This record gives sequence, structure tokens and C-alpha cells, in this order.
Amino acid sequence: MKHFISIQSIPRESIDKLLDRAEQIARHRPTGRPLSEKILGLLFFEPSTRTRMSFESSMLRLGGQCLNLGGAESSVMKGETLADTIRVVDGYVDAIVLRHPRIGAAQLSTEFSSVPIINAGDGAGQHPSQTLIDLYTIRQSFPLDGLDVGLLGDLHYGRTTHSLAYALAKYGVTIHTISPKGLGFPLSVKRSLTRFGACVVEHESIKEALPHLDVLYVTRIQRERFPDPASHYDTLHSYRITPELLSNAQKHLIVLHPLPRIDEIDPGVDVLPHAKYFEQAKNGIPVRMALLLGVMK
Amino acid sequence: MKHFISIQSIPRESIDKLLDRAEQIARHRPTGRPLSEKILGLLFFEPSTRTRMSFESSMLRLGGQCLNLGGAESSVMKGETLADTIRVVDGYVDAIVLRHPRIGAAQLSTEFSSVPIINAGDGAGQHPSQTLIDLYTIRQSFPLDGLDVGLLGDLHYGRTTHSLAYALAKYGVTIHTISPKGLGFPLSVKRSLTRFGACVVEHESIKEALPHLDVLYVTRIQRERFPDPASHYDTLHSYRITPELLSNAQKHLIVLHPLPRIDEIDPGVDVLPHAKYFEQAKNGIPVRMALLLGVMK
Amino acid sequence: MKHFISIQSIPRESIDKLLDRAEQIARHRPTGRPLSEKILGLLFFEPSTRTRMSFESSMLRLGGQCLNLGGAESSVMKGETLADTIRVVDGYVDAIVLRHPRIGAAQLSTEFSSVPIINAGDGAGQHPSQTLIDLYTIRQSFPLDGLDVGLLGDLHYGRTTHSLAYALAKYGVTIHTISPKGLGFPLSVKRSLTRFGACVVEHESIKEALPHLDVLYVTRIQRERFPDPASHYDTLHSYRITPELLSNAQKHLIVLHPLPRIDEIDPGVDVLPHAKYFEQAKNGIPVRMALLLGVMK
Repeated sequence: MKHFISIQSIPRESIDKLLDRAEQIARHRPTGRPLSEKILGLLFFEPSTRTRMSFESSMLRLGGQCLNLGGAESSVMKGETLADTIRVVDGYVDAIVLRHPRIGAAQLSTEFSSVPIINAGDGAGQHPSQTLIDLYTIRQSFPLDGLDVGLLGDLHYGRTTHSLAYALAKYGVTIHTISPKGLGFPLSVKRSLTRFGACVVEHESIKEALPHLDVLYVTRIQRERFPDPASHYDTLHSYRITPELLSNAQKHLIVLHPLPRIDEIDPGVDVLPHAKYFEQAKNGIPVRMALLLGVMK
Repeated sequence: MKHFISIQSIPRESIDKLLDRAEQIARHRPTGRPLSEKILGLLFFEPSTRTRMSFESSMLRLGGQCLNLGGAESSVMKGETLADTIRVVDGYVDAIVLRHPRIGAAQLSTEFSSVPIINAGDGAGQHPSQTLIDLYTIRQSFPLDGLDVGLLGDLHYGRTTHSLAYALAKYGVTIHTISPKGLGFPLSVKRSLTRFGACVVEHESIKEALPHLDVLYVTRIQRERFPDPASHYDTLHSYRITPELLSNAQKHLIVLHPLPRIDEIDPGVDVLPHAKYFEQAKNGIPVRMALLLGVMK
Repeated sequence: MKHFISIQSIPRESIDKLLDRAEQIARHRPTGRPLSEKILGLLFFEPSTRTRMSFESSMLRLGGQCLNLGGAESSVMKGETLADTIRVVDGYVDAIVLRHPRIGAAQLSTEFSSVPIINAGDGAGQHPSQTLIDLYTIRQSFPLDGLDVGLLGDLHYGRTTHSLAYALAKYGVTIHTISPKGLGFPLSVKRSLTRFGACVVEHESIKEALPHLDVLYVTRIQRERFPDPASHYDTLHSYRITPELLSNAQKHLIVLHPLPRIDEIDPGVDVLPHAKYFEQAKNGIPVRMALLLGVMK
């Protein structure tokens, strides 16, 4: 594997291998600093904290070093083309983790980079390393094949749900989409899923979908994305996950969330056995360690 | 020692041990990179440069690594609760240095963290690692017991003076407070000091207090904190430390300042033997090295 | 070599030695982590990305560590004098790379620092490590002595061209300046060059100068620097480097640029054998590695 751009283009066997490697790493942390001579460049043209920190921590755990180009500074480079930035930075580092507001930015960067590019989010496009973490966390509870997985929230702009849906399609999962009107999957995502032979069931109400689910994947709905701001409070409320709501779920249901969460999951849920989102965040380390080893070793 | 939150809760013997260890470190820098497998997370929700840099340098000197969540980026996380942030970040690092604008934030964080928390300033609360540095620097000149220590400046909002006063109380020090009207210790600090059996003498004029002092600890008075802005220039001027003023001090008096200083100490003082504030800043390294070893080793 | 402040004050033999060392490093990357116990402080009071990243990467490649004081945070320190900042930070690190908006800031800092200072740009002053990279890149194509080098763009405010001109004077190079009216070398730079015995030929048109050149060094002209904004578009256009323009150049001409470039070089030039600016950027690593070894080893 040279670059890591989109989850569709990676065969299921390669995904399984990466997840297996992550499991081994979680059990026995690798010794001997396998990436001790390597530098990871973090190019974040959009703010991020946990994705960046999680990649940095993973790199440091492998004995490597990190070079940050982030926050306010990235604006300095805005005058130049992404192609020029990549052509310069690839001389400073051994791999680049890129977050960019434009769809396709990571793919474009591969044309100019002599070092591996890892896509850490390209606009409303994809966020494939998050998907690896999601799959890994589900696998800790169930085998992936044939599950019923609910994707809840803003599925229009939410890149994590796009990447995850593409991956789940590889495992014969039934995808239940649960989103307000106007915030369902974009047509392009729907078409891709159909092409992959994915089974997608659309719901507008969480209550209707909940009893069928093995996994509920919650994402944030940003207020400014609402087609109808007037209906906004009622709608948000009806999509909120509470202990009461979950009393109608299957006992084995697990709840995931890419975090940060604001109001969409009641803190009362944190103590229920359903809640797996903090484990999910911690799983970022072994999964991204496996990924970094995959592209640099 | 698991967490390091407030100076009151640490017995005098533990403080002495930490300072002794710092002295050893200053004499013989530890070899063998004792924290080489560790990552220190720096969570600064308020701007800081020297505290952060000093912790970072100390960690690097011990062979460890640092992970920064700071500056502009920290605002990204503001939407989520501190509890959630801590629960995620503690999966990335082996200890957390936290600066936060709210009193009690560090204490609260210990409830959610699986790794040690070091308080690097919680609003107008405390800044206990600075206090260790202050004590260490005084000890380089005199034994702590029974000294006369003047605390000058904004004692109302100045968290460094609160922490330091609590610590000095453990050593039978006479505390001379010197501050403009309205900027003395808050009632809560006064009550705590009384409860600890501290001997506190209040002054409004530096000239009155100066001849009695072994140590003069100067802090900044921010203009916007002034109860009466009209009187502001005259007052600031009367609290300014100059070579002329110090001619009335005891020969052995030492002058400390947590830095940065703006106008409160005349640069002419820098060359006098009284001036110890740059040594004090440098002492941050061995003291914080001892502290980091204390919580992680 | 203790500090590295200005290119004039370094004898030609020392420059040659540094460039030779950089060449060795480029051929055989040093092993054994020669700076493994060292910390490099990066004090950037002006935004920068590639200079900072390039120094950081060079330090990491040598096994050392970096401590950043940058971006938004540096403003926090603005209240205090540069002298105080240096006196504190030199206790945290083993060398300081300083970028500052004021001419002479790096020189001033040497008076207060116990560790080496490297000037990474002082206002419209100098940027001497960039000059080493420029010389190194020219040397990859030709021996330096007796060349014809064109400096194009804003020569008034462009510190990289000032440093480079001072250095070229040491090698008997003929300097061709090509800049809009009002944006030529400042009088002080001209006088210094005359004093060094430099041969300077002034041009207003690139077409006139181009056929004589072995090297064309392009820099950005910032719009806000234009004495006459009305003439701005026409002028910028006439200074733009395109494949058509270069068809009138000597075959062996090389084009350099300190980057980032915005519009001043057409992307069509990138694929021509003349284009050396991306190699130039990559050369930053071996050159700065040699420089860091020079001041710290």
C-alpha cells in the first residue's frame, strides 16, 4: 500500500489484514521503535484536534517523529497551490497526513508527492482512517458480516458516514440510514452504494429503525446545515439518543460516535453497556499504528 | 503521587523530597532517557508560552515526547465538555498538563482521567508547579523556615501568589502582602491561610515592608484589573521595583518574579545581586523534570 | 561558529566548508543521531511554514528535538522585551532559530543568549540560511565564480535577495538586478555591495537582462508594496516568467525561487530543465543539517 485515500479502492482482504495487525498491536505494543528514522508530516488545512493528536500519538508510539503544519499557519500557505505545498513538504517528511476542505484534495496530492499520502478528511468526501477505527470497534463486539448497522445524523455532509457505508457494503451489512429530510446521503453516495450492491434501508425516525439494529452510529447535525431552521429544535430533539430511547433497543446493540459529541447523545448513555464511543476513540491508536506501519514499512 | 493539583494537599515532606530530587537533577542530569516510552499531553485552554515550553523542554530532557493541543486549536474542542476531552486524550498520552480558565478544572479532570493530571493553572485558582520553582529558588539562597517573604502586586487574581502563600505557610514563613486597595488576597485565600496557621502581615506600601524582607516576590498588576483606573499610573509607579528603592533593602534580599515582566521591575535591577528571576525561570527545568518523574515513574 | 546572523560576516572559506559538509550529508545521511541530546528552539515572531518546517525536519533527521514557540502564541510574549524572552528561552533549549519582524533582532539577541542564535529572517534585513541553500543549489549546476546571476522582483523589501547579493559578491559574480521602479535595492544594500567590490548591473526589463544570465533568481512582488497601484497589473505581467520568455535564455540557465510562488512563475516552467526551485527547497534539509551541526557540535 503506497497511499491511503479512499476506502472503496482497498480490497476487503487488505482491510481485514490492517484490522488484524491493529489487534496484534493492541495486545502487544511493538517494541524496537520500528519507525524511529521516520518523520510524519501533518498538514491540516482544516481545524482538527483528535484526528491530529491520534495520528501524532500513534507515530510517537512507533518511535517516529511528527512535523506539524497546522492551525493559523496553514493559512500562510493558502496563496500557493496545494501541488506546490506538497512538492515542498514531501522533501521534509516520510509520509503526509492531509486534511483539506476540498473533496479530492488527497487524491490530487498523490500526483505530486514522492511520499505516501494518508487522507484524514477531504471536505464532504471521505475520512477512511476513521472508518478503519469504526470497523475495528464493531469487530470487537461482533463479526462484521450480515449485521444491521444504523447511520444516524447528517448523512449529507458527514464524510465519516460515507466512508463507513462504502466499507460496510463490502461485508454484506444492511445499512439503515436515519436522517432528517434533506440531510440523507447525497445522490453520488447512493449511486456508489448501489453499484457496490449495498443493501440500504431509509428511515426518518430512529424509533422505527432502532429495534432492528446491532450497531447505531451517531453523528452530529450542525445547526447551520438545517434546510428549515424553524424546525431545527424539534428535529434535533427527536434524534437525540437517551437511556429511555435505548430501552427499546436490542440488548447487544452498541452505540458508536466519531466524537466530539455536543448534545446528540445524553451523558446518561455513557454508563450503559451500549456505549462504545470512548473505546472507539482509544482504538484510534492501534488502528493508526497499523496504518502508519502499512504505508511506511 | 498520582495527580498534582494543589499545593495544599501535598505534605511538606513530599515537597521537600521533590525539591531534593530537582537539586540532584540540576547537579547531574539523568542519563538513560528514563521517560523514553512516555508521551506528555499539553492541554492549554489559555495561552501560555513559558510554562508550556518549560514542561516540554523538561519532558524532552528526560527522553520523552510531547503532544500539544494548544492555541487556536483548543477552541475547536470548546463545544464538547472537558470531561469528554479528557476521556479521549487520556488514550493518547501518559500524563496531561492542563491549563484552563476555570477554577477547579484540574481537580474535575482527575475524575475522568486514567492518566496523571498536572495542574498548570486553573483560572484564579492555583499554579502549583510554579510554586515548586519558587520554593526551589528561595532554597538556593536560604533555608525556608522562618523567612520574611513579601508578595507584591495583584494578589487577588494572581494564582501564583495563592499557591506560593499556601506553601510558605507549611514552613513557618511570615508572609507580607503588598498590594493596591482592592487587589489583596480574596477572602477565601485569607481564610485558608488562617486555617493553616499562616502568619500574614498586610502592607499597602512597599517602602514600609521592604526593610523586613528576605525575599520579595513581584507579580504583574494588569491595568484592566484596577478598581480605579484614574489612579492607575500613580499606583503602578509606586509599586515599581528600582535600584533606588532596593538601596533600602537588606543586603541579602532576593527578588523573584514568575515572568513575563512588563514594567514592574526596572531593567537596572537585572544586574544587581538581588535579582534572581532569570535563575528562577531556568530552575523550571530541573523542578519540572523532578515533577514529571514523580508522576510517571 | 557560535551564532549565525549575517552572511557578510562569514568568510568565504567557512561558507564553502558548510556547503561541502551539506553535500556530504546529502550523499550519506549521518547515522548515530549526532544531536540526540539537543533541543532546538524555534522562535517565530512572524508567520512562516517552510523555513520552520525545514529547520525542524533537519533537526529531527539529526536525532534532535524541537521546541516551538510560534503562531498565535508568540503574540503573548509581545508585552515583554525580546531580551527577556531570549534570557528565559535559552534555559530551555540548546540553540535558537529566530524570525523577527525587526531588522537587527537576531544580532541583538546574541547579547542576551547563552546558546547559539540562528537568524531565520529579521524584517527586511537578512535570511542567511536561505542564502546557503541558494548557493548550494547554484553549485549543483556550476562553479560559483564569475557567474552572471539575475535577481528579479522586489529587491527593496526582499531580504533573501539582500543576503544572496552579499554572498555572491564574495565569488566575483556579476549581479543583474531586475525590478520595477522604486523596488530596487535600498541605498544601504547598494552601498554595502559597492564596499564589497561587487559588480552590479541594473535592469528594468527582464528581456534585456535574460540572454546574459546563468542563473535567474525570482522573488515575489507583493501588491501592497507597489508605489503605483494603478500600474500594478501590467508591471506584474511583464515580470512573469513563462516558457515563451525562457526561449530567449541560454540553454544552461537555471531558475531559482525561495518559494512560495504565487503567479510569478508560470506552472508551464515547472517541467523545463531550467526549473530548479523544487530541488532548491529540498536542498534546505542537507544545508540546514550542516548548519545545525556547525553551531551545536
